[in-house]
Amino acid sequence: MLTPGLEFGTNEHLFIEGCDVAELVKEYSTPLYVMNENLIRSNCKRYTKFISENFKDGSFPCFASKALSCLEIYRIMKEEGMGVDVVSGGELYTALKAGFPADRIFFHGNNKTSDELEFALKNGIGRIIVDNLTELHTLNKIATENNLKVKIGLRIKPGIDAHTHDYIRTGQIDSKFGFAIENGEAMEAVKIALTYNNLVLTQLHCHIGSQIFDKTPFCDAVKVMLGFISDIHNETGMWISELNIGGGLGAKYTDADTPLEIEDYLAPVADTLHNFCKENNIPEPDFHIEPGRSIVGEAGTTLYTLGAIKDIKDVRTYISVDGGMADNIRYALYNAEYTVINASRNTGKVMDNITIAGKCCESGDLIQEGISLVNPQVGDILAVLTTGAYNYSMASNYNRITKPAMIMVKDNTHRLVIKRESYDDLIKNDI
Amino acid sequence: MLTPGLEFGTNEHLFIEGCDVAELVKEYSTPLYVMNENLIRSNCKRYTKFISENFKDGSFPCFASKALSCLEIYRIMKEEGMGVDVVSGGELYTALKAGFPADRIFFHGNNKTSDELEFALKNGIGRIIVDNLTELHTLNKIATENNLKVKIGLRIKPGIDAHTHDYIRTGQIDSKFGFAIENGEAMEAVKIALTYNNLVLTQLHCHIGSQIFDKTPFCDAVKVMLGFISDIHNETGMWISELNIGGGLGAKYTDADTPLEIEDYLAPVADTLHNFCKENNIPEPDFHIEPGRSIVGEAGTTLYTLGAIKDIKDVRTYISVDGGMADNIRYALYNAEYTVINASRNTGKVMDNITIAGKCCESGDLIQEGISLVNPQVGDILAVLTTGAYNYSMASNYNRITKPAMIMVKDNTHRLVIKRESYDDLIKNDI
Repeated sequence: MLTPGLEFGTNEHLFIEGCDVAELVKEYSTPLYVMNENLIRSNCKRYTKFISENFKDGSFPCFASKALSCLEIYRIMKEEGMGVDVVSGGELYTALKAGFPADRIFFHGNNKTSDELEFALKNGIGRIIVDNLTELHTLNKIATENNLKVKIGLRIKPGIDAHTHDYIRTGQIDSKFGFAIENGEAMEAVKIALTYNNLVLTQLHCHIGSQIFDKTPFCDAVKVMLGFISDIHNETGMWISELNIGGGLGAKYTDADTPLEIEDYLAPVADTLHNFCKENNIPEPDFHIEPGRSIVGEAGTTLYTLGAIKDIKDVRTYISVDGGMADNIRYALYNAEYTVINASRNTGKVMDNITIAGKCCESGDLIQEGISLVNPQVGDILAVLTTGAYNYSMASNYNRITKPAMIMVKDNTHRLVIKRESYDDLIKNDI
Repeated sequence: MLTPGLEFGTNEHLFIEGCDVAELVKEYSTPLYVMNENLIRSNCKRYTKFISENFKDGSFPCFASKALSCLEIYRIMKEEGMGVDVVSGGELYTALKAGFPADRIFFHGNNKTSDELEFALKNGIGRIIVDNLTELHTLNKIATENNLKVKIGLRIKPGIDAHTHDYIRTGQIDSKFGFAIENGEAMEAVKIALTYNNLVLTQLHCHIGSQIFDKTPFCDAVKVMLGFISDIHNETGMWISELNIGGGLGAKYTDADTPLEIEDYLAPVADTLHNFCKENNIPEPDFHIEPGRSIVGEAGTTLYTLGAIKDIKDVRTYISVDGGMADNIRYALYNAEYTVINASRNTGKVMDNITIAGKCCESGDLIQEGISLVNPQVGDILAVLTTGAYNYSMASNYNRITKPAMIMVKDNTHRLVIKRESYDDLIKNDI
């Protein structure tokens, strides 16, 4: 499997959007995060086009920037007419520094601090998606002190569970996030919000899971949320004007993954929303979704240099690369599957039963197990595909390893967007 | 359970080495890593004292700095007469910047890059512990080019498996680390090393696992390694002069953990070494061990502020803190157990069935499940014990959360050793 924009050249090297990986490595070294800017932009365009053509005027998709947060990604999202969602003061700060319009930023999280809320309010952020009653109270207090009317959403648990891994389960009642509909918490939160003079409740938000390949749960979530909007109207007389169904559309990590095309997932969601509103006399809300992985996941490729081959007879072959769990913790954390290929050659004897090991001093520091590679040699460049989401954003300095550089490639050109950390960066805050 | 140096004051606050946590939080904010300097130093003294009294003159313990690496910890290790082991150029750089003597640094890792090896050699590092044949060859090449004689060790798999968790399994043949004795790899590596003129093989190293509570596997490892030293003498006529049995001694995370006292683990190891050498006519090697967790683990306490309480009837209670997997990933990664206590009060109704959730936008971001707390209230300070090892060192900026500050407490005083990251630090390398 190759992700969009990847192909092998006549010199047997992998090319990404026309750039020879050998040239990229020569200029930027390894490990290296390579992002396909064309793919990121075309994914954004598919979301914005479909949504502007099929939903009410105020509707727009928000990039879930926890998948990848840096100045350049917010600049791209601004140019593509996206909104963004942020989950911390740090993401919000980065978005604002990149010049992203504050009113198109939604702020999520189960435990925003007072400092973060104050920072968001003072910068006129678009929506605060409130997670719990403590936050609702704190937010109203800060808004009142600053004489602001603040637009908010509520994070709702719709009771729908559509997931591929225990660790990324959300939506059901046993979750740290949000207010459950089924036990009355959500309706209580709505009613309390309506009593707060400095808060304006405009949005309901839910998030049913991650790496989902099926459209049905999204349609079900729309129905549940619209039903709740109808209930709110019945109990309070108010119509909620914005529905945000969160993120969750999957990306292709291996050939076994079958994510929906963006339009194939949005079309039934749009139909469901239109039909349900019509049938139940609900004024159509503005529509928001928060794709992260499905925008940047397949756009990312990590390049490593192969450092050592350890063939343990009758056991397996360990191949060590110059990165690992510090730049991609997802195999150690979730047993996440990835496609790994030899980017230096694509003909020759295939070696099987390979474990790709990172360089951290820890046995669990593996990138993938049980893979095959074409004729691997010390010094080869290995490429791990679909690393655009939750790789750089989860990177650590474990073992005091410096975080890799990130580049964007586009139309046969490349440019640095995040500089490689230096040794001095590691001790910058040490006294 | 309380770790050494912790006690509740008459004001019901937790005190760490005489410092009221409320005062610490007022000055440094949360999340905050608090390190007990007295405990770190006394642990070091116990290791150095026992080893100087019971092993040959050249013997010393090395602090495994992957457990905690920053300038101040290397300064303390230098003052305490420890060696250190490092596993990357970044750890080595930090140690050297702190003025740690290069000749007492051992450099480990399964995939050191050429740049790292060159950096180590040019700084006269004590030993390179070679992991594989590619590295052996590369190292000799660099040493030859620089006209240096380099003292090396070899990482050996002794075939002993003493472990508490799959992810931290090492020592057996199916490992990314080292040369196995049982299939002849290790002897082959010894013989190749002896042919390289610029390498001087002085040390054999092994590491049998982590968080071990039993002395037997260490004694077994000593016997296996001494047996191999004897075999090497028989085959090559050379006596290996240094034996390094790595790390692995456990720390107490909860009351269920029963780590050995440092002396109770070292005494049988010393006896085994002396007896085995005597019985088998082996000249006693210098002895090295590499404790990390057992020196700094229990010396660390993380302080959080309680942000929200979500009591889901008949399910469980989620309590959110202002940190999480970004500063302590060990529960998400290994299901690691921790003791969590309310540091703001120690009387009142105990609440059970609590899950401590972090603030990351991810359901798996939990610090601990199924715990009890004394009367938790929003705004309380919660303390997670035994966080001195593999917490700061594994910290990430996931969700663009800034890394916490770290302070040392000692004799009723406190001082900053790592400054809290700022939002500007997050974008320092963004273009």
